[in-house]
Order: sequence, then C-alpha cells, then structure tokens
Amino acid sequence: MTEAFTRPLLATIQSVHQASRTTGQLSTEAKNHALEAIAQALETFAPEILAANQQDCEQAQAEGLPNALIARLKLDANKLQGAITGVRQVAGLADPVGEVQIKRELDTGLILQRLTCPLGVLGVIFEARPDAVIQISSLAVKSGNGVVLKGGKEAIHSCQAIVKAIHQGLAQSDYPAAALALLTQRSEIQQLLELDQWVDLIIPRGSNEFVRYIQDHTRIPVLGHADGICHLYIDQAADLAQAVAITVDSKTQYPAACNAIETLLVHAEIAPKFLPMVCDALQAKGVELRGDATSCQFVELVPATATDWATEYCDLIVSIKVVDSLDAALEHIDTYGSGHTEAIVTQDQETARKFLAQVDAAGVFHNCSTRFADGFRYGLGAEVGISTAKLPPRGPVGLEGLITYKYQLVGDGHIVQDYSGPRAKAFTHQDLT
Amino acid sequence: MTEAFTRPLLATIQSVHQASRTTGQLSTEAKNHALEAIAQALETFAPEILAANQQDCEQAQAEGLPNALIARLKLDANKLQGAITGVRQVAGLADPVGEVQIKRELDTGLILQRLTCPLGVLGVIFEARPDAVIQISSLAVKSGNGVVLKGGKEAIHSCQAIVKAIHQGLAQSDYPAAALALLTQRSEIQQLLELDQWVDLIIPRGSNEFVRYIQDHTRIPVLGHADGICHLYIDQAADLAQAVAITVDSKTQYPAACNAIETLLVHAEIAPKFLPMVCDALQAKGVELRGDATSCQFVELVPATATDWATEYCDLIVSIKVVDSLDAALEHIDTYGSGHTEAIVTQDQETARKFLAQVDAAGVFHNCSTRFADGFRYGLGAEVGISTAKLPPRGPVGLEGLITYKYQLVGDGHIVQDYSGPRAKAFTHQDLT
Repeated sequence: MTEAFTRPLLATIQSVHQASRTTGQLSTEAKNHALEAIAQALETFAPEILAANQQDCEQAQAEGLPNALIARLKLDANKLQGAITGVRQVAGLADPVGEVQIKRELDTGLILQRLTCPLGVLGVIFEARPDAVIQISSLAVKSGNGVVLKGGKEAIHSCQAIVKAIHQGLAQSDYPAAALALLTQRSEIQQLLELDQWVDLIIPRGSNEFVRYIQDHTRIPVLGHADGICHLYIDQAADLAQAVAITVDSKTQYPAACNAIETLLVHAEIAPKFLPMVCDALQAKGVELRGDATSCQFVELVPATATDWATEYCDLIVSIKVVDSLDAALEHIDTYGSGHTEAIVTQDQETARKFLAQVDAAGVFHNCSTRFADGFRYGLGAEVGISTAKLPPRGPVGLEGLITYKYQLVGDGHIVQDYSGPRAKAFTHQDLT
Repeated sequence: MTEAFTRPLLATIQSVHQASRTTGQLSTEAKNHALEAIAQALETFAPEILAANQQDCEQAQAEGLPNALIARLKLDANKLQGAITGVRQVAGLADPVGEVQIKRELDTGLILQRLTCPLGVLGVIFEARPDAVIQISSLAVKSGNGVVLKGGKEAIHSCQAIVKAIHQGLAQSDYPAAALALLTQRSEIQQLLELDQWVDLIIPRGSNEFVRYIQDHTRIPVLGHADGICHLYIDQAADLAQAVAITVDSKTQYPAACNAIETLLVHAEIAPKFLPMVCDALQAKGVELRGDATSCQFVELVPATATDWATEYCDLIVSIKVVDSLDAALEHIDTYGSGHTEAIVTQDQETARKFLAQVDAAGVFHNCSTRFADGFRYGLGAEVGISTAKLPPRGPVGLEGLITYKYQLVGDGHIVQDYSGPRAKAFTHQDLT
C-alpha cells in the first residue's frame, strides 16, 4: 500500500461524506428523478457496459477463474435490462427519509420530533456481480445516502462503465455525483474499513468467510451475516406428508442459500415412520444424508460427527438428529443455530406457540419452508441483506437498514434551569401525533 | 484470573441465558407483579440494605476514595425510597414486548408478523452507584430480559444486599430469579465481555474512559457513548438575550453532564456585541473561557489550542470560536462533534432549517438548551443510556433499547418451489394491520 493510493482514497471518501451532508435533504421527487436519470443513462450506455463486461469475462476466462464466478460476473442485455427495471422499482418504493416517528410537546412552545434520516455514507464491498453496483446505487440514492463502492477486480471494467453511466445520469439530477464513488484497488478495502469517521455502514456481499473477515476488521457497523445454520424440527404431531415437502424445499430449493436448512431434527416418536419417508425424498433429489446414532437405526446414513451440527454445508448435504422432546430440539437450536431462520412442522398449536416464542432467531417459522426468509418474499420491496445481529435491523433488511433517526427539538429560548429545583416547571409530555 | 473464577462465571451466565429464554413470554401483568414484589422486598430489606451501604461508605472513607465517588456510593433512606418509587414507575410504563410491527399476508394462509421481543441477556457494568442495580433490574424485568450485573467493588455489600432483596421479591413472582445475577469479582468484567454467545448487549455506566475501554474490548454491542462534545452555534440572526441564557444553561446547569456544551461558535457579525455579553454572564457563573484568535480581539480570553476543540471538559470551561458563516459552523461541528447534541440559536427559520437538516447528531436543537437531551425530559419514562451510535437506538434510549424484533411466519405447508419458475404463484403481500 503506497502513499499514492492512500491520499486519493481519503480525499475521495471525504468528498463522498461532504456531498452526503446534503443528499438527506432531497425531496422524494428529486430522488426519484435522479433514479430515472440513472435508468436512462444505463440504457444509453448499455452497449459500452456490455462491451466492458465482455472484456472482464474474457479476462476471467483467460485467467482460468471458476465457472461459477464467471457466471455471476456475466452481464448480458437481459440481465442489464433487469437491473435497470430494478432501478425504476426502487423509485416506486416509499421514501424512508423524513418520517415523523415521534412528535411530542415537552412544554408550551418546546416541540420534540424524532425524524428518520440517512445514515450518511455506505461502504459496499462485493465480489464479482457487477449488477450489484446498479442495485446498491439506486438504494443509496433513494435513502439519501452517499456510497463508496468496491467491486472485485475481475469486474473492474464493468463497474467502471456502470459508474460512468450512473454519474452521467446523476449529472442531470440534484443528487450530487460526488456522493457516489467507485474504488478499484484491492488495497483500498482495508483503508475503507478503518475510516469509521467517514463511513457509517459496511455492506459486504460475498461468501461467509468474506463477511466474517470484514466483521473482524472494522469498527464500522456491518450489515450482514456470516453464518446461516438453519434447522427444521419435525414434531411428533406433524403432518408427515407436509413435513416431507417442507424438508425437501428447505434443503433443495436452493441449497447454497443462507436460508436453506443444514440440520433436520426429528421427534423420536415419529422417527421410525418419518425418517424412511424423508430420506427417500431427499435422496431422490441427490442429497447426501448424515445422521446421529439414533437416526442410523432407522435408515442407512453416513454417521454424523460433532462438527456436522456446526457446519453450514451450502450444498446438497443434510445432517439428521433424533430428539426426545421439543425442549431437546430447542436446546440443540440454542447451541448450534446462527440466529437466522428456524422452523417447526407440527399440527399442535401449543407446541408451535412455544417454539415460536422460545427460539431466538431473526425468523421463526411454523409449517412452511425456511426458504421464505427473504426480503422480496416478505414484501420489503428491496433487500439490502439479511442480518443475524440481535439489535435491529434484524432479518431481511430493506431500505430501513440504510436509515437512522435523529431527535429534533425546537424551542423559544427554553432552558433546563427552569425545570429544576423547588420551583421547577413541569413538562407536559403531550404526544401530538 | 484463576480457573476457580472462570467456571462459576460461565455457569452463572449460562444459567441467566437459559432462564431468559422464558422471560420474554411473561405477560405484562406477570412482569408488573414481579416489579411490585421487588419494590416490597426492597422496602422489607431496607434496614439491611442501608446497613450494608453504611459498611461500604465507611470502607471507602477508610481507603481515602474521592468524595465525589463516596457521594455517588451513599444510599440513604430517601435515595433508596426514590429508587423503589422508580421500580413502581417502571411497572407503569407500556410493555415494549409483543408489539406487532408488521402483519402481512404473503399468500393465502401464509401470514408474516414482525413482533418485538427481548434482546436476551443484558450485561450491565457500573461504577459506585448501587441504586443503578435497582433501576436496571426493574428495566430488565419489564423488557423480559435476563441481566448480569457487575458493580464496582466499593459498592459490593450494598449490591449484594440489594440483589438478595430483589431475588426474594422475584421468588414471589413468575420471573425466574436465575435470570438476574450479580458478579462481584473485577476479573469477571473481561470474561463477561468475551461471552458474546450468551450476552446480547453491554450497558456500561461510568466515565468516558470506562465506556471507551468497554467498547474496545468486546464484540457484544455496547449501548452508550464515550464522548459528549456538544456545540452551541449563535447565528447572526440570534436574539442575543436568549442566546446568552441558552449558553449559560447549556454550559453551567450541570457541567459534568454529557449534554453540556464544550464549544460556543459565534457568527462574526454579532461577535463584537455578543461576546462581551456572554463572557460576562459565563464568568459570573465561574466559567473559564478559552478563545480562538478572533474572539480574543473582542474579549480577554485564554487562547485556545488545537486540542481544545476536541476536548470534553466535563467542567466549568468553555472554548469559543468565531465563524464567518453557517457553513463554517457546520464544518467545525462535522469535524469535532461527537454526534451527541448540537444546537443553534437564530430567529432565521431558513438558517435553522438548514442547521437541523445538515447536522448529523442524535439531537439537533433550535433555540433551546442542549441540556434537554435526556430520556426523562424527552418523556421516554426511563433512560437506559444515551447512544451516539448511528444505527438505532440513537440518542436517549428508553426501554426500546432493550428489545429487538423477530419475524414470525406461519403457513400450512407452504413451500418456495411453488413461487418459482414459469408457473410461479404470485405473492399477495397484503398488509393486515
């Protein structure tokens, strides 16, 4: 890391911070106009963007990068048009800024309001997918934030072409182009993570290891999750056909997703009947089955080891454990769950109520697939990421993860001394909304 | 740190965690009953508590601890009764748990709810004040959390007597006494900070250095603030008499508070007239004045150095700077402010609007004292602390800082596969509240 890189980076981020001080004041109309200008510019520059992406893809192939990565990198005309449609959809979302959460008279002429406002500057670090630049830029504009984008080096030409188009679009709008910047050097990631005075939220997009690295190397809040170890518990009172369908969907509908299950917990009473059913169905989908000693009594399984319970396979593998009770299932989830999404299948309402109440996770599901844990399926309109943090925002996060609030107090010369001591005035504390 | 300490600590905290899995399900009535039982037990054990406190105070005096610390340590019958009244007031606050924030049909029979729920286990670390045990315990019970309390060793007998009484009270209630534990060894702080699997929020109560130490030594979220560098900007369009009164209140009403100002920014146009007025008033209150070169032209001041702008005095000292414009004031606040509370005095509504919009702080005030930045004055009912973090909870935090939410999804065998591919079902996404 040379001085030559360090100085421009700091200057760039300070410029974004500086510009972001005004983006929070833009009207909904001004922000939506900026989004439409971005969409049009992306359409205008589409040939240039696709050519740049072609260059990245050829380079990636020449370097022998994995096919899965090249697939994520590839931006064809359809995918680009889809991303542009996404920009216009963000324009259609409700403006998260300026919402009055509290309006309260503290005393005559002394009015407190709690208003939503942008966080400031977002730092987004992603691998491969250049369309992420388009999506996150549109969310940043709508939420009134500045944004610093750092893409993977394999996508550098695509990202540069996209950001050039976005800047051209923003030049036709009130959202300052200086509030959106692209970093291109890998060495800049570590510097970005250290700039907690200027950057307010880090959004990492990539593998679990990548997210964990980011979390461990910054004081800036990180929106995301490192692990997605989700469980499905099949209670003794389950509808077994329903339980099979939900198990198959939760494991196989998209096994690499964070909301796919890794472990199936089965009540001992139904294990002899249910395990052969579910294992047949999973094996028909090509799932590798690993089980504890008890489950191996009923079906032929690879014996599970202690590490299986703590592993996110991200693959067509499931571990199976037989439990004696709901409490044993809760205990297992409490020990191994990552707080992402946990589900129960049962027809017993009291058992379901206890499970939903006692499991501590961003999502607690009853008689449905864990794969529903997703911002679009929840109807949030857009998903910034899924957070397994305890404090909000938790779970799938939409635009609300990109805003905060501040207290605004307006008086007419009010001082605290008048509300102190033996002749203290009383507060009225009257809510006005 | 010996094994002998380590094992009981882990066992204690695991017990609190275990017990806290059920406290979130208690009804409002059950929690209020527990609070009344605590209040009555504290009344019953008052003589024992006061005697224990007497012992702590004598010990502190014998050890020559500072008088200010002994004053905070001292618990007389009045102060104890005040704390007990506080417990009953917490019973009167609205229950923050179980609130339905979102209720949405995703499709027929597939219902999503977002419900508020406790965080889990609170870790509260405080110095001296034994009445903090009473306050935070009552807030933990009301919010359905477990709590691990670590008081200063100078208050050990007081804390033990108080927790004994609280446990006796809880024994008459449905809130399990095991969900509330007191740590007594100083070595246990570091261990507590490492137990991020079992503890969900750390609340430090003490000096700025103490809070910063805690923030730098844990992965657990910390509720609080290390710095309170607040500014008051007197605009050229200020009512000068009002500006003097607000300055004096903001600086002197309680100078050790985090919401007291450290720096006064004065517009150049009114500086020649305003500075003599405000300096006379501040000096009459015993305030030491430090100023930049320009302000020293108008009044006799100790020249301020670069470090003054970055210092929280917590004392009767103020630094003064003359600025040429609102933008220069905003720039100074952006550089030196700690995001706590920032205020402007002006009769110009447009200037006020710009200040309130552009200043990035938990509190932005117009024509009133910064000392109003406080949970009780805001009408929050109880204050857990003041947060200068960007993500919510921000500013003075009431019970809402002790809760989070989870998404609950209830279906009837719904799987994601049915909503995918060419014949995908559509979501209805219909809000039910």
